[in-house]
Amino acid sequence: MTDEPKKEMVVTPWEVSGDIDYDKLIDQFGVQRMTKEIEEKIAKHAGFKHLQLRRGVYLSHRDTDWWIKEYEKGNKVGLYTGRGPSGHVHLGHLLPWFFCKYLQEAFDADLYFQMTDDEKFLQRDDLTLEETIALTYENALDVIACGLDPEKTHIFSDTEHIGHLYKIALNVSKKVTYNTAKAIFGFNDSNNIGIVWYPAMQAMTCFLESEREGKNTPCLIPAAIDQDPYWRMTRDIAEKLGYYKPAQIHAKFLPGLAEGGKMSSSQPDSAIFTTDPPKKAGKKVMKAFTGGRDTVEEQCELGGRPEICNVYAYYYFMFEENDAALVEREMKCKNGEILCGECKKTLAKRVEVFLTDFQKKREEAREVLDQYLLK
Amino acid sequence: MTDEPKKEMVVTPWEVSGDIDYDKLIDQFGVQRMTKEIEEKIAKHAGFKHLQLRRGVYLSHRDTDWWIKEYEKGNKVGLYTGRGPSGHVHLGHLLPWFFCKYLQEAFDADLYFQMTDDEKFLQRDDLTLEETIALTYENALDVIACGLDPEKTHIFSDTEHIGHLYKIALNVSKKVTYNTAKAIFGFNDSNNIGIVWYPAMQAMTCFLESEREGKNTPCLIPAAIDQDPYWRMTRDIAEKLGYYKPAQIHAKFLPGLAEGGKMSSSQPDSAIFTTDPPKKAGKKVMKAFTGGRDTVEEQCELGGRPEICNVYAYYYFMFEENDAALVEREMKCKNGEILCGECKKTLAKRVEVFLTDFQKKREEAREVLDQYLLK
Repeated sequence: MTDEPKKEMVVTPWEVSGDIDYDKLIDQFGVQRMTKEIEEKIAKHAGFKHLQLRRGVYLSHRDTDWWIKEYEKGNKVGLYTGRGPSGHVHLGHLLPWFFCKYLQEAFDADLYFQMTDDEKFLQRDDLTLEETIALTYENALDVIACGLDPEKTHIFSDTEHIGHLYKIALNVSKKVTYNTAKAIFGFNDSNNIGIVWYPAMQAMTCFLESEREGKNTPCLIPAAIDQDPYWRMTRDIAEKLGYYKPAQIHAKFLPGLAEGGKMSSSQPDSAIFTTDPPKKAGKKVMKAFTGGRDTVEEQCELGGRPEICNVYAYYYFMFEENDAALVEREMKCKNGEILCGECKKTLAKRVEVFLTDFQKKREEAREVLDQYLLK
Repeated sequence: MTDEPKKEMVVTPWEVSGDIDYDKLIDQFGVQRMTKEIEEKIAKHAGFKHLQLRRGVYLSHRDTDWWIKEYEKGNKVGLYTGRGPSGHVHLGHLLPWFFCKYLQEAFDADLYFQMTDDEKFLQRDDLTLEETIALTYENALDVIACGLDPEKTHIFSDTEHIGHLYKIALNVSKKVTYNTAKAIFGFNDSNNIGIVWYPAMQAMTCFLESEREGKNTPCLIPAAIDQDPYWRMTRDIAEKLGYYKPAQIHAKFLPGLAEGGKMSSSQPDSAIFTTDPPKKAGKKVMKAFTGGRDTVEEQCELGGRPEICNVYAYYYFMFEENDAALVEREMKCKNGEILCGECKKTLAKRVEVFLTDFQKKREEAREVLDQYLLK
């Protein structure tokens, strides 16, 4: 193992870079470490333990145990996740959405899926509102292709569905000072007044189901940990507004294909997009950063390094359902019995098969999009 | 005339107090002084010169001449005014609305009437959103009772009609930094993030008709001068967004019944509300601050002071249509030929007659409210 200097970790709702140290993040964000007990309870209600639970994708949480208990008491519970429509969807985005489908079935939960087209427009100089709205509908196809229940999934765009949202967001905004928002999100005075307002829109969704149901409904948010500042703010004000604090379950980032960092839309070659032609995606895999050695001889002798290998990470997080097969692959890699070329080829094939199937579902989603939109 | 120390003038969108010095306001706000030429042109298109124009109620403007020219070229022109629904409507509020009716007819203009229920909710700790929304509909009855054309009047509530408004407001908000808003509105960091966002909502209406018409439509805003900071901000960004700068025509404040300041909802006895029972309103008039002397003898000898008299101001701005009769009343007052009691009694009677008629129209407005709402 090399001892290269670590790149400074940055994890905010707008930037994830550097070498991610999850232990440090858990301390820094003041969240609770995931427990075996919670994982087992989720598995019990689902009838099986999801790959993402078996592999420790959900590293931390806040009040997920309480959310499960509310369900066990016979109360209705809900889910909330979302997407900032600034480009195409990549495989990293899909992880929590697949997990939402799993939780939706296990807990008979409605999922409120927020498309933050206002946020992306306000943040990015290069995007018009028309563009982020168009991307909203494109990205919604990906959400639907994950197999969510049309009866229990409510996809909405901040701009297109604002009539359902504005009043709740106003109530939130009245409880958050500029000072607080500045401290949490690092605003400075040259930020525009729209982006200063936006946290109220993201927080609002935590209370949307309660408003629609006419009674307090526990809300669990499966999302990557970089969104945590929003929930910290929301939890601070929830009870003042008469709502439950939202619970969270935090996912790790799916690594990009290049060395370090998460899969990022802003580095197109580091990510596999759901809209990539399968062959092209396969080629991206073949060029991925691995844990391989400089020469074949060296690798046969010393073995590969799955712990720093992005190809291995793809198997781990998404493309090897079978635990025994995963362990076998890891061992063979470490022993130098399997080389990177072969390993990448197998993954490329699986990615191609996955994308071919997903893209078919994605096209079919166009026909049923309306059924999934918030009414 | 007494030489009492003047009370410091404060004129912002949230506070109007002290002795109002309109010359100073015109300089301070950097607006243009009203001209005879503009007044005559408006009168020409209307077919008569409105009392408010004859009496100099509109003391200043920005680009009203340009707005008239656009109309004369055969272009569609529009009007925008509004109301912050934080309580009942008083007579001071009605002045620009009556003037809007006059302009609507003269220039065949659509009027966009904004009810800023979000603003009032965000500003006032004592108001819930439900309350400001309820007041919106109550206040809309007053607007309609002014006799506006249902075909050409579009009353909307920020919260109830947000679906028509949010996208335009987002475009505005992206062009306004917190720094700019802070400088214009005097925000400080302990303001809530909703009120920081709100200027985008008020500015947005300047562009609403252009968006709905699908072409740039000159917009004129008749309103009291305290709202000017919003239009200054809006004019700065209008062209960046591809719109015309909005034009303004600024009204003086109708004085309250108590000494100094404008008629204010926050001092109930200083204002005559449209919902006051007529007899009660008459009694308020009888208790009004006048320009009378301490004793009858003194007044007969020295005469009254209409220049500081609120009762005279009510005749001047609203309750004496006939110019010759107004001059006669002024002269008789100055000569000590008419005393305050008699003068107040006549005004009280006129106010009672006005309110009786207005309240009838206001009740009838309930039946036609829907016709006036933005669709």
